[in-house]
Amino acid sequence: MKQSRAFIPTLRENPTDVETTSHQLLLRAGFLRRHTSGVYSYLPFGLKVLRKIEAIIREEMDAIDAVEMVTPILQESELSQERMEIDGDGSDLFHLQDERNRTYILGALHTELMTSLIKEEVKSYKQLPLTLYQIITKFQDEPRPRFGLLVNREFVKSEAYSFHISDESLHETYEQMKEAYSNIFTKLNLDCYIVDSDASMPDNLGVHQFIAKANNGDEEIAYSSTGSFATSVEQAIVSNHYEKSDEILHEVEKVKTPNKRSIQEVADFLDVSIEKCMKTLIYKADDEIVVVICRGDHKINEIKLKNAIAAQSVELAEEEAVKTLLSCEPGSIGPVQLPVGVKIVADFAVAAIVNGVAGANEDDYHLLNVNPEKDFAVNQYADLRYAEEGDIAPDGIGTIKFTKGFEVGRLDALGTTYSKPMNATFIDEAGTEKSMIMGRYGMNVSRIMAVIAEQYNDEFGLKWPKNLSPYDIHLVPINLNDAIQKELADNLYKLLQTYRFEVLYDDRPERAGVKFADADLIGLPIRITIGKKAKDGILEVKFRETGEITEWQVEEVTEKLQAYFTLN
Amino acid sequence: MKQSRAFIPTLRENPTDVETTSHQLLLRAGFLRRHTSGVYSYLPFGLKVLRKIEAIIREEMDAIDAVEMVTPILQESELSQERMEIDGDGSDLFHLQDERNRTYILGALHTELMTSLIKEEVKSYKQLPLTLYQIITKFQDEPRPRFGLLVNREFVKSEAYSFHISDESLHETYEQMKEAYSNIFTKLNLDCYIVDSDASMPDNLGVHQFIAKANNGDEEIAYSSTGSFATSVEQAIVSNHYEKSDEILHEVEKVKTPNKRSIQEVADFLDVSIEKCMKTLIYKADDEIVVVICRGDHKINEIKLKNAIAAQSVELAEEEAVKTLLSCEPGSIGPVQLPVGVKIVADFAVAAIVNGVAGANEDDYHLLNVNPEKDFAVNQYADLRYAEEGDIAPDGIGTIKFTKGFEVGRLDALGTTYSKPMNATFIDEAGTEKSMIMGRYGMNVSRIMAVIAEQYNDEFGLKWPKNLSPYDIHLVPINLNDAIQKELADNLYKLLQTYRFEVLYDDRPERAGVKFADADLIGLPIRITIGKKAKDGILEVKFRETGEITEWQVEEVTEKLQAYFTLN
Repeated sequence: MKQSRAFIPTLRENPTDVETTSHQLLLRAGFLRRHTSGVYSYLPFGLKVLRKIEAIIREEMDAIDAVEMVTPILQESELSQERMEIDGDGSDLFHLQDERNRTYILGALHTELMTSLIKEEVKSYKQLPLTLYQIITKFQDEPRPRFGLLVNREFVKSEAYSFHISDESLHETYEQMKEAYSNIFTKLNLDCYIVDSDASMPDNLGVHQFIAKANNGDEEIAYSSTGSFATSVEQAIVSNHYEKSDEILHEVEKVKTPNKRSIQEVADFLDVSIEKCMKTLIYKADDEIVVVICRGDHKINEIKLKNAIAAQSVELAEEEAVKTLLSCEPGSIGPVQLPVGVKIVADFAVAAIVNGVAGANEDDYHLLNVNPEKDFAVNQYADLRYAEEGDIAPDGIGTIKFTKGFEVGRLDALGTTYSKPMNATFIDEAGTEKSMIMGRYGMNVSRIMAVIAEQYNDEFGLKWPKNLSPYDIHLVPINLNDAIQKELADNLYKLLQTYRFEVLYDDRPERAGVKFADADLIGLPIRITIGKKAKDGILEVKFRETGEITEWQVEEVTEKLQAYFTLN
Repeated sequence: MKQSRAFIPTLRENPTDVETTSHQLLLRAGFLRRHTSGVYSYLPFGLKVLRKIEAIIREEMDAIDAVEMVTPILQESELSQERMEIDGDGSDLFHLQDERNRTYILGALHTELMTSLIKEEVKSYKQLPLTLYQIITKFQDEPRPRFGLLVNREFVKSEAYSFHISDESLHETYEQMKEAYSNIFTKLNLDCYIVDSDASMPDNLGVHQFIAKANNGDEEIAYSSTGSFATSVEQAIVSNHYEKSDEILHEVEKVKTPNKRSIQEVADFLDVSIEKCMKTLIYKADDEIVVVICRGDHKINEIKLKNAIAAQSVELAEEEAVKTLLSCEPGSIGPVQLPVGVKIVADFAVAAIVNGVAGANEDDYHLLNVNPEKDFAVNQYADLRYAEEGDIAPDGIGTIKFTKGFEVGRLDALGTTYSKPMNATFIDEAGTEKSMIMGRYGMNVSRIMAVIAEQYNDEFGLKWPKNLSPYDIHLVPINLNDAIQKELADNLYKLLQTYRFEVLYDDRPERAGVKFADADLIGLPIRITIGKKAKDGILEVKFRETGEITEWQVEEVTEKLQAYFTLN
């Protein structure tokens, strides 16, 4: 492609109000243009990348016998009533009416539509399992579109739906899909974590998220340095093993701690490490009062607490309730000599505290040398705290690390979440009518493109991975008025195309500096410069990935390029 | 693809309320499903055909250096204000609001959006010409969606926009585009006419429509049997050559024709052919009265009349005005002895009438032996009548035929129609600011799919052209419980795929009759049946196009298939 006709409108300056690297670079390199909040055009090079991503998705979907189709964007609102019952109030959807006042939504999730289609066409177990997928434009009335393609309102999504006669069959396809998704993200060169997530819908049999690393990501995940797990920070389990010192246990001693409210103030005042302090909180779990203890430097994770004590709900007890139990300020509460019958649960870390500090249940007093089991009984030890970076991973080998990212893929073992309310049934081998078992699998293709741009760039511009780059080679003659340079450039342009390379030929009447800056910004893997040494048959080759610059003889160029592009 | 997993839900019966062949067959063969009025899903085989059409379009667009991009579906309403001024009131668009009450339309035409994009990015003549194209989903709030994909509300369109510094540059691209469109329709095997149409917008430099033949088409066109032209019936020019008899001219004779109103009644009563009768009409052209004469069997085409006499408007004179001129009923008006100074124009056919019949300008009387020039003077002869089937074509060789069809493509040499009001300018070589010259080129891909189905079918189902068929070969084993048949089918399935054929393997536990009916309905070019002769290595091969059935040896199958599929 001649660059003069390719419509790659690069920008010298960063557009105003654009904070994210990928967004800046995709605009500056002429891959995208914004039309209105959260709505973009894919300019020719943006579309090229999008299509390459889609091709990789299709390849993996076809390999597991998922069949591609396309559902419409305009959907009757009645259909989405059921969705609203399940997923929300519909305020995140675009609503419209036609001239005859019939109401529609713009397709966001297509689960009802697919379920109602399959319900009409599939009646017997003989027609199942069935996996359908589509790559289509979707819409969401996102209240705060931001970061370009990362959080927007019109986007390309790939999604698959599978229909089954049994949980086992769903499980089989779900695992194939997880494998296919992993393959896709590997081929997309995306640094990405598979997170085993909580299903928010009751009949759902499991959820996995694929989270791609990004500094500005809206998902925070915890993962093990050994790669053994990744999960949301909320769900990260902490090892229950803590080193316990072999210090001799001392007797409890009450000390005055005037006006010391926070644990840190108490620790500083008493000159002990915060790890030796016990944080004691009074919770209301369903209707029962529970005393919860963790280490001074830890934070109680209420989801873990709820699960550990099998409560429907947990919340910090109101001040009044605390006052009825103990006549002191919250900062002075401690586990020693609590009223008889009060349930005490403690985080595993508390068991390892020796000669610790705790509140004295009396304003402005704390106790020194408090030892669990000796000075107070614990009804239950459990993993109750938020994981922190540096914690031992549950496998006991790695340490826990945190990172931010964006969800790029999601697997939902829906089970009968949709088929039951929508009455999507089939007749099984015994002649019995049963609800179909369903799976749903989605990835945001537009967002993936942005995340790749987010992960592959430097201060000069984009650095596309070879298999996703809009073109392979940027051919940059310095001076097209020089007959030798022009002839070599023209010949090389034709030659490289016969070798099936995609070549962008910078035929613009621009200065070398402008051409080089644009080449770095656009970020094709190889730049071939034709300059003064053209007369000696020498080309300058720049590898965008490493920045390395070298010289090649014209005769060796095709062979060396083939070697470079077949290498992984 | 195994048919059991391919999701091709065929229907035995015609769906109710579906009148068009293509619509019936695309539904019955499981290519499409309707969701709401004018809104369809493309099921896997429908999508396959759509993608093949799109690939052909891309190939031809890329060949003329048109560059693909994608604009959004959601568009701000403000942008479309300018469109509405130019094209209509916007009632054919879908309108919507977001949660913050900003108003949008769903993309129908994208001319403003493209113009405003290019206006921002292109400033200099050096950046032109530029041709961009896209293949995207569009929306129109069609009041009467019908015929499936032929007239609907959500459809796939391919469209290109070109931007130029001069009319000459536009003309060059326009001609390339016309050639590319012709190539596309040829590759699509579409029986299609190129119609040179009237531009409805003032600055437009030319319009061509591509009309594909279809019995239920909404466009009526006239074309020459020699292929020398095609045009709308309104615009069809008729040869000005009529045979004139060498009969001796007689003197005018007045005869009584009591109560004979129509030309046919008069001709029957006088026992002369209607071709010898003259039809005389009084028109008001702007503010002048004009007498217009044509042959009794012809009909005046008012557009031709208007153009011939260079009037702004023409309409039949009111009865009052006729009465002031002549004191008789309209049926008895004739050209002889009209008041002095009245302008008389006649169709070319009138000049060839010898001893004709005309009204006597007196109720219930007609004149015999009326001869133009001898008995009345004609101010102007012109082509004033509607063409009729069988007329001589303007080239004097072919005859004119009529047909109906649908517009599948349209070329618009927009000129400055949009760029001028939208102030889309560039700086030319001399430093002067000028309006860009624009072209727009579109085709309705969804409709094309339906038209192909309309043109390629028989009473049993669809008959896909080889290069558009969703798959190449339908492999139909009669009995998969027969080990020999199954082994042969499995082996052949694998073998044919290694030869890069797309094979649909009917592995369903259905009777042979059902499988054959489905195969005919779906319409792949080749059906290979594996039956009892499998043990002798003999296959039955059916060519869908001709219905021919033959037997092949297993050993010769790949060679014969390669020969068949490489033939045009």
